[in-house]
Amino acid sequence: MAGDRTMTWQSIRDTIMLRIRDRTYPPGELIPNEADIAAEFGCARATVNRALRDLAEEGFLDRRRKAGTRVIEAPQRKATLDIPQIRREVEARGQAYGYRLLARETGSAPAELRARLKLPEAEATLYLESLHLADGAPHMFERRWVVLRTVPAIAAADLAAVNPNEWLVREAPYTHGGMEFHAEPAGAAAAALGCAATDPVLVMERQTWLHEAPITYAREHFAQSYRLCLGL
Amino acid sequence: MAGDRTMTWQSIRDTIMLRIRDRTYPPGELIPNEADIAAEFGCARATVNRALRDLAEEGFLDRRRKAGTRVIEAPQRKATLDIPQIRREVEARGQAYGYRLLARETGSAPAELRARLKLPEAEATLYLESLHLADGAPHMFERRWVVLRTVPAIAAADLAAVNPNEWLVREAPYTHGGMEFHAEPAGAAAAALGCAATDPVLVMERQTWLHEAPITYAREHFAQSYRLCLGL
Repeated sequence: MAGDRTMTWQSIRDTIMLRIRDRTYPPGELIPNEADIAAEFGCARATVNRALRDLAEEGFLDRRRKAGTRVIEAPQRKATLDIPQIRREVEARGQAYGYRLLARETGSAPAELRARLKLPEAEATLYLESLHLADGAPHMFERRWVVLRTVPAIAAADLAAVNPNEWLVREAPYTHGGMEFHAEPAGAAAAALGCAATDPVLVMERQTWLHEAPITYAREHFAQSYRLCLGL
Repeated sequence: MAGDRTMTWQSIRDTIMLRIRDRTYPPGELIPNEADIAAEFGCARATVNRALRDLAEEGFLDRRRKAGTRVIEAPQRKATLDIPQIRREVEARGQAYGYRLLARETGSAPAELRARLKLPEAEATLYLESLHLADGAPHMFERRWVVLRTVPAIAAADLAAVNPNEWLVREAPYTHGGMEFHAEPAGAAAAALGCAATDPVLVMERQTWLHEAPITYAREHFAQSYRLCLGL
């Protein structure tokens, strides 16, 4: 690779990352200094510096001004998950995405939802039930509650044309949230998913907030063939 | 915040991120220029530049030398998952971690494993069955195969004292891998987990490689109370 002037800092970072992973640069040991790495790759020291800074920020390297750069002993490896945007996920597999709104009701929040989002007794919510399809077959069944106080505009939205997730992504900014996965029997989702009520399915629960204001809570049951995949 | 000289580039990045999320800086729109942001926060332009570069690399901003910096229209939000290291996960919840090795056998790889890791017919593997406990209660049941050609040292490891995951993290470097989650009936894992064979449980499959060489494939069944949690 020496002499290749097209090296970007990202490619140098990836190469160093591989050397950390395969222990060419072992845990706890000093790695070569910036000037030596720059000479090896035939690039500017600033490019190496940028790569090392990134790896330090991600927790793989410990950089000390005089003592040099060491590989962290036990880095916590992280896996990154693209938040499943259902249409993109289906289309990325080369399948046609479809969507059907099954139910839409305004009412006060049920007790379980009030506890989860810390809502007062009479909080008005929009309840939505929808089915998402891949090549015409059931892919995911979603039950969702939207807090009308936080997102009043959804009351007038045409959710038969645009699915609630896409509408919210576009219209309802959020600052933070959380997702949880577990397994449970398909239960009331079985009819929509075309499986038995006792069949185990993956369930994703998702909730988001705009600063202190609760936006939505969704409970999504995936078809049995679904796999949630992450790279390491 | 103006005049606060302790602002780091990370805190400026986080503040700008919040403004993108709550649409103070709306999708598709120009954000203030570096000099104006630096003046607002009372910091150096280089600090703002670092923050904006990071947000551009993460796909939230589009920076053009002359046209200025715009918020990307539909950023793909990412969720980050700490790879569950079973002991840390249990201890992080304030519970005592326990571990029992239930089975250990050397043999040739079963057909399903050979297909998954692209192994030849007679590939020798070490098969391990283990139970991981939280406060003495079953937390996760693991079946794992380790390719002896790639990790010969594991043949002599004391895996009753150190669990296979921790041994591999310490002794067997890997370059890449993948994880998949789905739901299935507890089946053969039911006895170890103390549930019924028909009870739905979350299953994690994980495999890793060192460059082209397969290292391990693990199939982990989690107790019914387990939740895989991710922040948004």
